[in-house]
Amino acid sequence: MPLPLLPQQDFYITHRILPFDYAMPALEASTDHYGMGYVISGDRFTITPKHTYYHRKGELGMMPPYLYHRTMPLSPEAGIPYEGILVKFSPKFIEPFTASVGQSVFDDIYSHRVSKFLPEDSEKILAHLRKMLETYKSDFPQKTALLQYMLYEFLLTVLWLRLDDDDSIPHNTTLTPPILEAIFYMEQNYSKNPSLEETATVAGYSPAYFSKLFHAQLGKSYSDYFAVIKLKHVQHLLLSTDKTITEIAIDTGYRHVSNLSEHFRKLTGMSPLQYRRLQKTNADALNPK
Amino acid sequence: MPLPLLPQQDFYITHRILPFDYAMPALEASTDHYGMGYVISGDRFTITPKHTYYHRKGELGMMPPYLYHRTMPLSPEAGIPYEGILVKFSPKFIEPFTASVGQSVFDDIYSHRVSKFLPEDSEKILAHLRKMLETYKSDFPQKTALLQYMLYEFLLTVLWLRLDDDDSIPHNTTLTPPILEAIFYMEQNYSKNPSLEETATVAGYSPAYFSKLFHAQLGKSYSDYFAVIKLKHVQHLLLSTDKTITEIAIDTGYRHVSNLSEHFRKLTGMSPLQYRRLQKTNADALNPK
Repeated sequence: MPLPLLPQQDFYITHRILPFDYAMPALEASTDHYGMGYVISGDRFTITPKHTYYHRKGELGMMPPYLYHRTMPLSPEAGIPYEGILVKFSPKFIEPFTASVGQSVFDDIYSHRVSKFLPEDSEKILAHLRKMLETYKSDFPQKTALLQYMLYEFLLTVLWLRLDDDDSIPHNTTLTPPILEAIFYMEQNYSKNPSLEETATVAGYSPAYFSKLFHAQLGKSYSDYFAVIKLKHVQHLLLSTDKTITEIAIDTGYRHVSNLSEHFRKLTGMSPLQYRRLQKTNADALNPK
Repeated sequence: MPLPLLPQQDFYITHRILPFDYAMPALEASTDHYGMGYVISGDRFTITPKHTYYHRKGELGMMPPYLYHRTMPLSPEAGIPYEGILVKFSPKFIEPFTASVGQSVFDDIYSHRVSKFLPEDSEKILAHLRKMLETYKSDFPQKTALLQYMLYEFLLTVLWLRLDDDDSIPHNTTLTPPILEAIFYMEQNYSKNPSLEETATVAGYSPAYFSKLFHAQLGKSYSDYFAVIKLKHVQHLLLSTDKTITEIAIDTGYRHVSNLSEHFRKLTGMSPLQYRRLQKTNADALNPK
């Protein structure tokens, strides 16, 4: 499980850089703290029993206690180290805050698993985290109180600045651990196109039973769900890189560019290049220069 | 008196620019709020019954309720508008803070009438105030709670970053209003060299009685105290401008440069140029480039 807070410790913040291919070894949940993670570089795919999240550079992830989850790189092909700031705080540390603003405000803040911001606001969020880190490392006698107010200010600032856009994907049912393992495996190996048989073995079921269970929990067949996983990665590379469609096809494990294009058009109704153009135009409109 | 908070208002912040020669028309005290003022440009001379303060660019002044005070420009000859950020908050607004960190911490924060900072820390203090101002003007539903935490964070940050150097000048006794008026008049007109007779009229006393009262309250004769006022202004111009001694002599109302130099040497033991060189060397040592 995520490392617990030390005894008598109610707040912890760290800046960490992990290898680009770092993945949590198993489903884990904290029992004693709320977590928050800001991504400075690299990106994360996170799976929980009820949702799947994409957590990218400049975004803030919120993880309540007792929520089983597992994270892995979303774009391992980019080879970018996963750098981020991680915050942990105990329920006790946040009590004066919920007593003052109300539990519903706090719940609202934690209702987005991943908070997104306009680029300039994301910079503000990062600056605030860096200030907390600096304070945490200082020997200022009142630093616990200061960190407490900084955290409360931070939480309200997140509520204020975050965009409504929460693109976590809810599952139809609560996924069971074997199916979570299967999805994790599919994500981790998507460019190698793992077969239903191979993934069923990872989950510990026969192919026939796994196929049935998978469809029951996710509302989609194995191949349809896998198609969506691949599509998400292609879309991400179209927007975050200047790679050609041929290069993206190689990175994401398509044998021919034509397969990628056909697949893309079937799921989105447009060509990969149309998608890239359209999304970049929208992004420019959102962030006037 | 300083404008009170509106009913139901517990916090107020404003950015204001006043003419370079703005002076409070009379001794005043707030009855319902704590005040804080950060100087962005220009400077202030403040007098209270127990202290005299110099409040310059980049410094933060703290004003508790029920403290009679009066402010005026410290360097009117520079003609720089007085620009600053002013904060007011009610005792109620700060209650959760004192309940948490202790009254003594809050008292410690307010014990420096003027808090000074290293230049880079002063920038941080200003950035924090600007963030509060932005939040105050916003329509974020939780802005009151957010401003509260920002204020608490701000107060602790001031305690953390402020320099020990508090150069307010304590008076030997509590000054009475007529003597406060007299000092205010002397400061305001120092370059015109007001005579004891002229200032006694302002205070509403005969010259003889005023002279006795002045000495009793300030421990110095009128002419000795006035010499210190002039010295302070000369010192400030030596450090904050590149003016020649001749120019400074004209600005501060000396008839001849030689009078200034002799006066300066008598009070400090060095020449004006030695002082300028020495202080600038010290300042450079404090702020390594």
